Amino acid sequence: MAYFELDTTISKELLAMKKEVGNFARKVMRPAGIELDKLHDPADVIAQGSVLWDVMKDFRKLHLHALSIPKDLGGLKGDVSDPKASAVLYEELGYGDIGLGISIASSNPFRMAASSPDPKLQQLARDYVQDDECNLIGCWAITEPMHGSDWISGTDNDFDDPKAGPELSARLVGDEYVLNGQKAAWVSNGTIATHATVHVNIDPSKGMQGNGLAVVPLDLPGVRKGKPLDKIGQRPLNQGEIFFEEVKIPKSYMVIEDPKQMQGAIKEIFTEANAGMGQALVGVAQAAFDEALKYAKERVQGGIPIFEHKNIKLQLFDMFTKVEAARAYARRMAAYNALNPPGSLHHAIAAKVLSTKAAHGVAREAISIFGGNGLAKEYPIEKIFRDALASTIEDGENNALSLRGANDL
Amino acid sequence: MAYFELDTTISKELLAMKKEVGNFARKVMRPAGIELDKLHDPADVIAQGSVLWDVMKDFRKLHLHALSIPKDLGGLKGDVSDPKASAVLYEELGYGDIGLGISIASSNPFRMAASSPDPKLQQLARDYVQDDECNLIGCWAITEPMHGSDWISGTDNDFDDPKAGPELSARLVGDEYVLNGQKAAWVSNGTIATHATVHVNIDPSKGMQGNGLAVVPLDLPGVRKGKPLDKIGQRPLNQGEIFFEEVKIPKSYMVIEDPKQMQGAIKEIFTEANAGMGQALVGVAQAAFDEALKYAKERVQGGIPIFEHKNIKLQLFDMFTKVEAARAYARRMAAYNALNPPGSLHHAIAAKVLSTKAAHGVAREAISIFGGNGLAKEYPIEKIFRDALASTIEDGENNALSLRGANDL
Amino acid sequence: MAYFELDTTISKELLAMKKEVGNFARKVMRPAGIELDKLHDPADVIAQGSVLWDVMKDFRKLHLHALSIPKDLGGLKGDVSDPKASAVLYEELGYGDIGLGISIASSNPFRMAASSPDPKLQQLARDYVQDDECNLIGCWAITEPMHGSDWISGTDNDFDDPKAGPELSARLVGDEYVLNGQKAAWVSNGTIATHATVHVNIDPSKGMQGNGLAVVPLDLPGVRKGKPLDKIGQRPLNQGEIFFEEVKIPKSYMVIEDPKQMQGAIKEIFTEANAGMGQALVGVAQAAFDEALKYAKERVQGGIPIFEHKNIKLQLFDMFTKVEAARAYARRMAAYNALNPPGSLHHAIAAKVLSTKAAHGVAREAISIFGGNGLAKEYPIEKIFRDALASTIEDGENNALSLRGANDL
Amino acid sequence: MAYFELDTTISKELLAMKKEVGNFARKVMRPAGIELDKLHDPADVIAQGSVLWDVMKDFRKLHLHALSIPKDLGGLKGDVSDPKASAVLYEELGYGDIGLGISIASSNPFRMAASSPDPKLQQLARDYVQDDECNLIGCWAITEPMHGSDWISGTDNDFDDPKAGPELSARLVGDEYVLNGQKAAWVSNGTIATHATVHVNIDPSKGMQGNGLAVVPLDLPGVRKGKPLDKIGQRPLNQGEIFFEEVKIPKSYMVIEDPKQMQGAIKEIFTEANAGMGQALVGVAQAAFDEALKYAKERVQGGIPIFEHKNIKLQLFDMFTKVEAARAYARRMAAYNALNPPGSLHHAIAAKVLSTKAAHGVAREAISIFGGNGLAKEYPIEKIFRDALASTIEDGENNALSLRGANDL
Repeated sequence: MAYFELDTTISKELLAMKKEVGNFARKVMRPAGIELDKLHDPADVIAQGSVLWDVMKDFRKLHLHALSIPKDLGGLKGDVSDPKASAVLYEELGYGDIGLGISIASSNPFRMAASSPDPKLQQLARDYVQDDECNLIGCWAITEPMHGSDWISGTDNDFDDPKAGPELSARLVGDEYVLNGQKAAWVSNGTIATHATVHVNIDPSKGMQGNGLAVVPLDLPGVRKGKPLDKIGQRPLNQGEIFFEEVKIPKSYMVIEDPKQMQGAIKEIFTEANAGMGQALVGVAQAAFDEALKYAKERVQGGIPIFEHKNIKLQLFDMFTKVEAARAYARRMAAYNALNPPGSLHHAIAAKVLSTKAAHGVAREAISIFGGNGLAKEYPIEKIFRDALASTIEDGENNALSLRGANDL
Repeated sequence: MAYFELDTTISKELLAMKKEVGNFARKVMRPAGIELDKLHDPADVIAQGSVLWDVMKDFRKLHLHALSIPKDLGGLKGDVSDPKASAVLYEELGYGDIGLGISIASSNPFRMAASSPDPKLQQLARDYVQDDECNLIGCWAITEPMHGSDWISGTDNDFDDPKAGPELSARLVGDEYVLNGQKAAWVSNGTIATHATVHVNIDPSKGMQGNGLAVVPLDLPGVRKGKPLDKIGQRPLNQGEIFFEEVKIPKSYMVIEDPKQMQGAIKEIFTEANAGMGQALVGVAQAAFDEALKYAKERVQGGIPIFEHKNIKLQLFDMFTKVEAARAYARRMAAYNALNPPGSLHHAIAAKVLSTKAAHGVAREAISIFGGNGLAKEYPIEKIFRDALASTIEDGENNALSLRGANDL
Repeated sequence: MAYFELDTTISKELLAMKKEVGNFARKVMRPAGIELDKLHDPADVIAQGSVLWDVMKDFRKLHLHALSIPKDLGGLKGDVSDPKASAVLYEELGYGDIGLGISIASSNPFRMAASSPDPKLQQLARDYVQDDECNLIGCWAITEPMHGSDWISGTDNDFDDPKAGPELSARLVGDEYVLNGQKAAWVSNGTIATHATVHVNIDPSKGMQGNGLAVVPLDLPGVRKGKPLDKIGQRPLNQGEIFFEEVKIPKSYMVIEDPKQMQGAIKEIFTEANAGMGQALVGVAQAAFDEALKYAKERVQGGIPIFEHKNIKLQLFDMFTKVEAARAYARRMAAYNALNPPGSLHHAIAAKVLSTKAAHGVAREAISIFGGNGLAKEYPIEKIFRDALASTIEDGENNALSLRGANDL
Repeated sequence: MAYFELDTTISKELLAMKKEVGNFARKVMRPAGIELDKLHDPADVIAQGSVLWDVMKDFRKLHLHALSIPKDLGGLKGDVSDPKASAVLYEELGYGDIGLGISIASSNPFRMAASSPDPKLQQLARDYVQDDECNLIGCWAITEPMHGSDWISGTDNDFDDPKAGPELSARLVGDEYVLNGQKAAWVSNGTIATHATVHVNIDPSKGMQGNGLAVVPLDLPGVRKGKPLDKIGQRPLNQGEIFFEEVKIPKSYMVIEDPKQMQGAIKEIFTEANAGMGQALVGVAQAAFDEALKYAKERVQGGIPIFEHKNIKLQLFDMFTKVEAARAYARRMAAYNALNPPGSLHHAIAAKVLSTKAAHGVAREAISIFGGNGLAKEYPIEKIFRDALASTIEDGENNALSLRGANDL
């Protein structure tokens, strides 16, 4: 039986958007993702003429990127009032292709710019809303070679170990900040982004409690990009290092200068990032389940569809339950966070962990059901499995995130 | 951090009820459950003077049993409009004591009576609403020694294997049905019930497709009770066999006579039973989690609370996530089923399986956190664990239920 | 198919012993264990006339207790040369009843006595060998209320946190040691033992590195016993607190006085304890599997034995694999430790963790296969499950043990 | 701590071989496997000049391939007497590269040829022993597009469903058999093999009970190869379809003509295949564990090696235990099967399932420990993970194998 929407109270408006995004996910993202996944060199994913650019531009035409920008800057923020809107829509993007979903949804620096009183940054946000050609691409530059899971620990007020502070420093020189250091290969959109939200250390003595946040145009002198990361999953998603050598930005681009204010901000950022992943991965889990169910009903062994074997039935029902549980929780968490900003970090982490585990677990069982075909590149399931595996680690390895979440119990 | 309600849209009315039932669960059910669990002989649980009777009477004073009876018969059916009401309230009962929760919530025969045009049965429903002294106790007499999981298969339209039909038969003689056979030791309230909803076979040639449903007063000639079942968990819940030997009931007491109608009815009954278990077991899981978290913050080993150990933190966060996922899904499923009667059977089964697994898994981890004290009768956790274990099997072993649920995928 | 011995190189001598112990396990221990488990009050387990005493005396008649005492003291140490002997025999004891197995195999103080030059202690060891009437009963008094898992950390040379040192102290006064403090309720044979090996702290400033080991007759003035522990599983195994108030023992009874020597000794003791548990629990796992397989082949549902359902088959094969893997590893570890004394602690820990998890996991699946009957006291499986659960925590909670084991990786 | 050999009774001769094969695995196979894995097109793996051919030739120089051929044909069969020899050596091959290990160890058709009285086939076996240049390559052609898991069911005497019989048929025409049909893409060495052991159907009416076994030179008219399979893991292992269209072989090349005899043979073949996988995958699991342990001790986060985090320690100890358990069982099973030919099929299946699960599970945890680097192609672990995943399905999906194994319980 095809998926049916248990939540019969979703607004018509949101259902219409869901349908539109769902079509985009199925007809544009899914085939493009499969095509991009097959490219051997990740540099080809972002090469001119790559289907990646078609996807990115098509997404802008849906104008959903405007949802993150306030109305006075031309955006649509607040226009979708259903508190489960983000969950419903991210599910669709994840269903299409999680790597592409992450890539096209990265609007971080423009949202940050919108929150600044600096007219230049405000204009940047305005331009982003209007940018149907995808000339402006954002990235969230936080992770560093020696500081992966440390960052999430930094959301704890008492985590101020200087040894665990960021490597990328910003020092104030006159009315400019000068950035030195690097961000790691895990920055999504790292080598294609035009602008980044960069987490920097202003006061090294305070470790993670001495940080600030800057919006940085990536065409500034001293910025250098690494080569695209070659990895097991989410291959359509560009990731790569960004190096900063004496990069100068106006003081006003340090949109959060006060480490105390940064504390609240980083918690908010992590809440949103984890929530988004928790929502989108429900779509991945659903995609894996749909493929497995379809295959089990079609594939004949021993004279009957393998769906008729009791062990296969049990596997499928367990997969179904995992998907539904992840969805239920992601939506419940989404509604709470939407209605009670800035939301609850540890509930968002739980959603990220639950959904990524569900997606990974369901895709793993799907491979077992596909049998040998589950390993073949000719069939869709091994890609979904690799994508799901990657999600259990990206934006924070699940155990590292859980340890942070546990601090709020 | 104590549990906080993520769903900020719950009606004030329901929140008030939740608080009232929650108090009853914590102050009346919990201590009574612990006391009853310690009784060596299950006959003592139902003996005169047992605290069981206090709990049952106190529950009637909350007047919640009236919620299942229509207003024209004096009941309160429909008075609580929040579609998540059942989920919210069953969670509380499960939190108090799942065995007692099942016992006090068994209103099946009276609800069935209310649905009959027979004035006598209507009066029975009326009496039930007024019965504050717990003189009327219901039970759901379905399970048989040789037919446990077969029953759930019977909700499939094409399952009509005569070999797998019920043992308890009803044959029409004049204007009476005559019942012969037995129900198994797993009937909840089996040895204390005054009235039963009894699943009977009317047409043996059709197996599970030849069944009917009768409301049977258990003081009729020919009815005999077994002795209370001695078991590992949910010991406060009375269970036991009921034997029927030439038991005569008026034809009108066969409230469902038409096997075709019975098909819809049994699906509805199973949907409700599974939904209820899925909701109540969330409370059990929460209880186990609460005990473990408290213990981990208090218990010192190696000079610090064991909560500070990263492995303990990971365990707790995983437990937290399991509880929250089960709750989210149970509530989502509850809302759908309330708004779209008769609801979806396989979603209800998924809730039962998910919540019982969560309760069992969380309680298991809790024992590990309690260490040696987790095994001791002096501490609360081993009882919760035994109760949760029982739930994975009662009302249908989880795998058997899942196999049925898979048929609707 | 019944279990068959894969190791076709076992000596005839050991096979004969296996058969003898196997008979004792099946005909004496198993029924006695079931009987003792049903006793409501753990005090009844050790009461005069309890079948416990018959089991203990019958075991002495097998003269296996002599295996731990050197030949010059009348024992049989070294007589069984097969390096897998302990594994093969402990499996049988575990198969019979793990609680009773632990009780009857506790020869610790007598072995320690045998290692001392003190004539009195040597005589004690001699008496133990001859004691067919079970007048001498040993216990290993290590665990304390505030120091459970700390003890295993104490086998690390660098673990000397004074805060985590033992509560039971021994100070030298003249030619006597004076003991003060208590051992926890988890001491096996705690309330029936006549002699104990007692872990004491001699130098509090060094925490776990300032310890010694004493053989203590428990009829000395100042020794007091708690009441038998009431617990979920292994109920035939007596456990209970021992209190020491100004208990005086001859200096020579401190069989290990030098904390440095104690370091080696405690590692050896833990190696042996973990190895023994790892071996015995294989028997528990096998018992659970045997019951489940037999039931699955006998129990009919839907017209065929449930063994014919593919999901049941999968469960059983997974259980079979778990049992066989645990056995293979326990024997391999046993052989290494026997041939390379004092053996490898972390391999022994791995065996304990693996076998107890296997026993618990297999018993859990067995309950699922038994369905409702799996919860009933009338059937054997719920007891085996409770016993297995207890084993995951006794002699060190599995995670605590694993953390210690990991230090040797 | 580096792995040390628990089995201190291994013969010096075998230890020497282990060392030699171990060196080959580490110095030749491992780097070659990594290089081959990176090739985008599986056709490049087998292209002229590919490092694959160096590996294959180097292996022949070890002369281990001669171990499967009797002495009177120039082979070394029986020369290594230690019953655990196969386990010890396959572990090493798996440690090096499981895909290459399977490729180089495929000697099936030559062993079958050696068992035939036909002088031509005997000469083939002789040539194989002498073939240091790898001119002769074998493959086991059993799996078919519509018959994957059916084959293992065919080892059950009563499985004779005509609907589940093989697609590849052989009919006797004069003194020749004529083959028609195809083998699936999962045939290892499928597109590079010079000779195949081909499972054919002689009597379609008997399904899997009407089969025979032929040795087929793959340069015969009518044989056609598919293109190399593109897949997620074990990419260095060539796999591909073989098509047979009116392929004529001498009657004597049907080395097993009698379906009854075939019954025993196929059971023996599956026993050996499963045993070999069970043994080799221990090496894969060990490789994943070694990488994770090394990384955990080197990688610093928050100022200390991540090995010091208790949750990481627990993960590693659990991984260690899984590896050791799989090894212990694989060796125990190997010894039994070597000493008691033709061995026990269901024990061999258990080894395959246990070891592949261990390898997959350990590699999965290793990725979690590596964090982001676990996903990067630059690090070794994601390849090991993909290889291990493939093993859970190749030579029979684990659940399908387990269902067959359960029939012997």
